[in-house]
Amino acid sequence: MAKPIEEGDYVRLWASNKKGDSFLIRIAKGGSLGSRMGAVRHDDVLAAGFGGEVLSTKGERFFVVRPTVSDFCRKIHRVTQVVYPKDAGVLLTSLDIRPGASVLECGSGSGGMTVFLAHFVGPGGRVYSYDVREDHQKVAMDNCRRWGVDDRVLFKVADVEETGFQERDLDALFLDVRCPWKIVEPAVSALAPGGRLAVLVPTVNQVEMVLESLREAGCADLVVTETSQRNWKTNPKRLRPEDSMVAHTGFMVFASTLKEGVAPDEYW
Amino acid sequence: MAKPIEEGDYVRLWASNKKGDSFLIRIAKGGSLGSRMGAVRHDDVLAAGFGGEVLSTKGERFFVVRPTVSDFCRKIHRVTQVVYPKDAGVLLTSLDIRPGASVLECGSGSGGMTVFLAHFVGPGGRVYSYDVREDHQKVAMDNCRRWGVDDRVLFKVADVEETGFQERDLDALFLDVRCPWKIVEPAVSALAPGGRLAVLVPTVNQVEMVLESLREAGCADLVVTETSQRNWKTNPKRLRPEDSMVAHTGFMVFASTLKEGVAPDEYW
Amino acid sequence: MAKPIEEGDYVRLWASNKKGDSFLIRIAKGGSLGSRMGAVRHDDVLAAGFGGEVLSTKGERFFVVRPTVSDFCRKIHRVTQVVYPKDAGVLLTSLDIRPGASVLECGSGSGGMTVFLAHFVGPGGRVYSYDVREDHQKVAMDNCRRWGVDDRVLFKVADVEETGFQERDLDALFLDVRCPWKIVEPAVSALAPGGRLAVLVPTVNQVEMVLESLREAGCADLVVTETSQRNWKTNPKRLRPEDSMVAHTGFMVFASTLKEGVAPDEYW
Amino acid sequence: MAKPIEEGDYVRLWASNKKGDSFLIRIAKGGSLGSRMGAVRHDDVLAAGFGGEVLSTKGERFFVVRPTVSDFCRKIHRVTQVVYPKDAGVLLTSLDIRPGASVLECGSGSGGMTVFLAHFVGPGGRVYSYDVREDHQKVAMDNCRRWGVDDRVLFKVADVEETGFQERDLDALFLDVRCPWKIVEPAVSALAPGGRLAVLVPTVNQVEMVLESLREAGCADLVVTETSQRNWKTNPKRLRPEDSMVAHTGFMVFASTLKEGVAPDEYW
Repeated sequence: MAKPIEEGDYVRLWASNKKGDSFLIRIAKGGSLGSRMGAVRHDDVLAAGFGGEVLSTKGERFFVVRPTVSDFCRKIHRVTQVVYPKDAGVLLTSLDIRPGASVLECGSGSGGMTVFLAHFVGPGGRVYSYDVREDHQKVAMDNCRRWGVDDRVLFKVADVEETGFQERDLDALFLDVRCPWKIVEPAVSALAPGGRLAVLVPTVNQVEMVLESLREAGCADLVVTETSQRNWKTNPKRLRPEDSMVAHTGFMVFASTLKEGVAPDEYW
Repeated sequence: MAKPIEEGDYVRLWASNKKGDSFLIRIAKGGSLGSRMGAVRHDDVLAAGFGGEVLSTKGERFFVVRPTVSDFCRKIHRVTQVVYPKDAGVLLTSLDIRPGASVLECGSGSGGMTVFLAHFVGPGGRVYSYDVREDHQKVAMDNCRRWGVDDRVLFKVADVEETGFQERDLDALFLDVRCPWKIVEPAVSALAPGGRLAVLVPTVNQVEMVLESLREAGCADLVVTETSQRNWKTNPKRLRPEDSMVAHTGFMVFASTLKEGVAPDEYW
Repeated sequence: MAKPIEEGDYVRLWASNKKGDSFLIRIAKGGSLGSRMGAVRHDDVLAAGFGGEVLSTKGERFFVVRPTVSDFCRKIHRVTQVVYPKDAGVLLTSLDIRPGASVLECGSGSGGMTVFLAHFVGPGGRVYSYDVREDHQKVAMDNCRRWGVDDRVLFKVADVEETGFQERDLDALFLDVRCPWKIVEPAVSALAPGGRLAVLVPTVNQVEMVLESLREAGCADLVVTETSQRNWKTNPKRLRPEDSMVAHTGFMVFASTLKEGVAPDEYW
Repeated sequence: MAKPIEEGDYVRLWASNKKGDSFLIRIAKGGSLGSRMGAVRHDDVLAAGFGGEVLSTKGERFFVVRPTVSDFCRKIHRVTQVVYPKDAGVLLTSLDIRPGASVLECGSGSGGMTVFLAHFVGPGGRVYSYDVREDHQKVAMDNCRRWGVDDRVLFKVADVEETGFQERDLDALFLDVRCPWKIVEPAVSALAPGGRLAVLVPTVNQVEMVLESLREAGCADLVVTETSQRNWKTNPKRLRPEDSMVAHTGFMVFASTLKEGVAPDEYW
C-alpha cells in the first residue's frame, strides 16, 4: 500500500475545521483545486504524499487522506440517486460480494453501485451491468474507468422486461429499477440455484409488489430490511450524536433462489 | 458458482415455516442433523444440491441454501461476543477491505471478524490476527479453517500493550479489545500513512477514551458512528416491521493516519 | 401529593437488583405479594409509605414508589394489545389531551388508552369509549375503575360501521380498530371543525387505506409518524444502550378536520 | 370546543402544497400575515372560523386549523433551545403531568416547556419555574401569557446552586440546565417522597454526571432513555419515510425519590 500518489489517482483533502471540510480530487500535474479556503496545487499534493499536508493559497492546512471506494461513490458525477454507504455494506455482505464473484446489476444508474461491486469482486471477478438508458450508462462507465475497475465490468444496454438477461449461473444479482417485480423471473433464471438476489426500492408499495413476485417465483429465505446510521460529534468532552441524520434511503429485499420446480408450499 | 456441494462444505437448511427456522450444517457423508422437526440425512442434502429440497424423517421440507459468510459467522462456535453483520458491513466499506488488502486485527476473539476479513481480502490478501489469549485464538483459527480461509491468516499470541505490532505499511487495522486507547500508538505505527483505523467498543466511556487517544496520536478524519438494522415481516398483505430488534452492539470509531510529525493543530 | 397510601391505591415495589425487578400492587389490608424474592405484606407497605422501604420474608429490600399512569397501563389486565407509553406520549400531545377536553376513542380494547385519556383530561373532561365487543369493554371499564377515572368515561357498545357516533363537536378522536378507514367519515362528523383525529395501525397496508380515506374525507394537515425509544443501562462507568428494544408497535396517522364542504383540491 | 375564534387566539394556516407550508398567527383585528404566498387578512380568518378556508391576495388557499400546544411551542419566540414535542410527550407521561399536579422546572429558558407543563396541569395545577437569567425568564413569561396559561405559573429568578428551591412536597420536577448534577440534592428535597424527577441533557458526559449524582442522592428506579420520531411522506401510492430526520435532541434521565435516610445499598 505504501505506493506513492500518481497522476490520475484520487486523493481526499481533509481540513481539521468545524465543518470537517473534505474535497475529493483526481491528481493532474499542474492542476489546482479552488475552494473558499483558497487554492491547492496538485503538485504540492503529489509531493506531500498520503498522510502528508499541504497549504492552500490562503494558508489553510489540508491533510492528504487515501479515499475509500465509499468516499469516491459519495462524490461521483451522478445523474441518478446513488446507493448509500450504509446500504452498500449490507448489500455486500448479504449478496456475499467476495473476490472472484460474478454479479449482475440492473440498472447501472450513475454507476455508484457498479463501482462498489467491481471494487469488491476484484480483478478476478465479473460485473454485468444492465440499463435501458445508454446516456446514464455512459456516466456509469466513466465512473468505473476513473476508479480503475472498468476491466471487470461488462455494460449492456437493454430493456430487460423485453429481453431478459443473457447470463446464467451467477453468484449474485442486484435490482435497482423502478418496477423490479417485472424482472424477478429473468433474475431468478440468471442466478445459479441457491444464488443471492437483492432488490432496493424506496417505497413500501414497491416492497409489497416485490414480495408478491418473489413468492410467485418460488424463492426461499425472504428478508426485508432497512438500515440506519447515526454519526456522533467527535469532541470527547461533549460526546453526543449529530443533530440530524438520513431517515430513509430505501428498503432492501433479499432472497435465495431454488432449482426450477422447487418451491415452498406456503409463506408466512 | 454452480459447483456441486462437497463433503466439508457448509450449507443452510431453511424451512418455510412461521419461525423461519434455519440450520447451518457442515456436510459429512453419513452424517445427520437432528432437530425437533425430525432428522435430515447429509447424503440427501448432497444429492439435492444447492437450491434443492430434502425431507426430514418427520416429513418436514427443508430447502438447501448457500450460506453467506454472515450466516457462518452468526452461528460459529464462539467464546466471545462476535461482530454483528450490520456492523461488519460498515467496517468492510470504511476500512476498505478489498481483494488483496493487508489488514491487522486485535483481538481475534472467536474469529468471527477474522473470518469476515479473510473472506473479503481473498486469497491474495493477508490478515494478521493478534490476541493475548491462546485458547481464544485456537477457536478463531479453527473457525477460519472450517470456512477455508486460514491460508491467508497469520495468528499471533501477544500482549500488544507490551510488544506492539510487528507489521508495517498495512492498509487497515481493526481494534476490538477492552482498552483500545492503550494500543492506538502501535496501531498508527503499523499502518501506512493514510491507512484506515477502526475501533469497536460497547460503551460511550470507551468512545471518549478512544477519541482522546486518536487526537493525541494526531490522526485525521475522526468519525464516530453507530448502525441499526430493522427487519420487516415478509407478508405483503400485512407488511410491518418485526416487533423487536437489536438496540445496540457497539460504537465504531474510524480515523485515517498521517505521516509521523504531521498532525492537526486542533480538533472540533 | 404527600398524602399517605390508602387501601385500594396502587403502589410499585422496586428492587435495586440487576434485573430492576418491579411489582405493581393494589393495596388491600391483610394482603400479601408473593414472588421468587419472598413475600411482602401490604400492611408493611402501608406503614412504610411512598418513598419508604419494606423487607420481604426472604430479607430482600423493596422501595415503595408512586406508580405513574404508564406503569399502571403497562401492567393492567389485558385482553388485547395495549398502546405503548412511547406512542401514548405522542398521541397526548398531538391530540392535545388537555384538562377538560372531550375525547372519543374507538375501540376500547383492554382500556389501556381509555385510562390514559381519562387520566389526562381530568375530572372536568369527558371520554367516550366505543367497542363492538361487550366482553372487552368490561375489562376496560374495570381498569378505569381500578385507576379511579371511571367517573369521566362513558362506554358504548356499538358496531360503528353501522351506527356511526352519537357525539358532535368533540375536541379529539382516536381510532384503534382493524379497519379504521371504514369509520373515518363518522369520525370527522363527530369532531368540531378543526378538531384533531388520530389513527393507530400496525401495518403499512393499513396506513395506505387510512390515508386514502382521509383524503377522500377532505381532512387537512395529514401526518404519518412512528416513534422509537431506546433505553440505556444506568451504570455511569459503563454507559451504553440496552441490548434490545421494541422495533415496532404501530404507525400513527394524524389529521385536522375541516368544515363540511371545505377540502383541499390536491394532496402531495 | 366549537367556540368561535376570538381576538388574541392563535390559529394555524395550513396550505395544501408540496412543502406543507403552515403559519402560526395570533389574531388581531385589522391585522395581516405577509408571506411569499401573498397576504392573508386576519379579519378573513375570523370570518372563516376553525375548519374554514381563506384566500391570500395571490389567490392561494389556506385552511384554518386549531393549533395544539406543540404547534405553539415549535414556533414561539425563543432565546434558547426548546424541548422537542417527541421528548415533551415522554416527559409528560414519565413525570405524570396530570391535571392539578404541582411541578417545578429549572430553568425556564424561552418557556417552551413551561407552556407545556402549564397547559397539561391545567388551571388547578401549579408550575414553579426557576431561572438564573431574568432576561430569559421574561421571554418565558411572555410566552405563557400569549398561550393563556400564566395564571398557574410562578416564575422565580435565582441561582439555585446557591439558594436551593423554596418548594416542598412537589409531584414532579424537571431539570433543564447545564450542570444539573449540582442541584440534584435540592431537587430531591423539593419533591414529595416517591416524587418524579426528570433531567434533560444533550451529551453522554452529562448523563454520566447525572447518574453519579442520582446514585449519591439515593434515588430509586433510574432510567436513561432517548426517543426518536420518524415522519413519513403521506402519498398512499408512494408511501415512504421522509428523507431526513432529527438524530438527537437530548438524553432524558428519570428517577423516583425516596424518604430521607432511605437508599439502595447498590446500583447496577
